[in-house]
Amino acid sequence: MENVNVQFGIRVRNLRLKKKVSQEKFAGLIEIDRTYMTDIENGKRNVSLAIIQKIAKGFDLKISELLEDL
Amino acid sequence: MENVNVQFGIRVRNLRLKKKVSQEKFAGLIEIDRTYMTDIENGKRNVSLAIIQKIAKGFDLKISELLEDL
Repeated sequence: MENVNVQFGIRVRNLRLKKKVSQEKFAGLIEIDRTYMTDIENGKRNVSLAIIQKIAKGFDLKISELLEDL
Repeated sequence: MENVNVQFGIRVRNLRLKKKVSQEKFAGLIEIDRTYMTDIENGKRNVSLAIIQKIAKGFDLKISELLEDL
C-alpha cells in the first residue's frame, strides 16, 4: 500500500484541479507557502493535522471527508 | 473552536479508555514512544498523518473514522 502522504498528495491535487484552482492560488487561499503546497501534492511532506485542517477548509470539506478511504 | 490537536488528543484518550488499554500498552502496540503518546493525548503534539494512520490502525478504524467530525 502506497505511503499515506503520497495518497494524500494525489487526492489534494485532484480536488484542486477539479476546482480549477492553481497551486499558487490555493496555497494563498489557505495561507501556506506555494513550494510547501507543491511538496504536499508530491507526497514529500508528512503533513500535520493542522495543515490537513487548513486544506480541508480550503475545499469546504470536513477533515474526515478529505481523508475518506485513505 | 478548540485546537484540532487538543480535540484529537481527547478523542484518542476516550477511545483508548473505552478499550481499557493503558497508554503504555497502546503506545507499544502502535510502536510509538509512551511519552509521545502522553503528549498526543494532552494535545501537545501537532500529529502527522503517518502517526494518525498508526493510531487509527491501533483502534481498527479507518483514518476518516478516527477523525470523524473533528
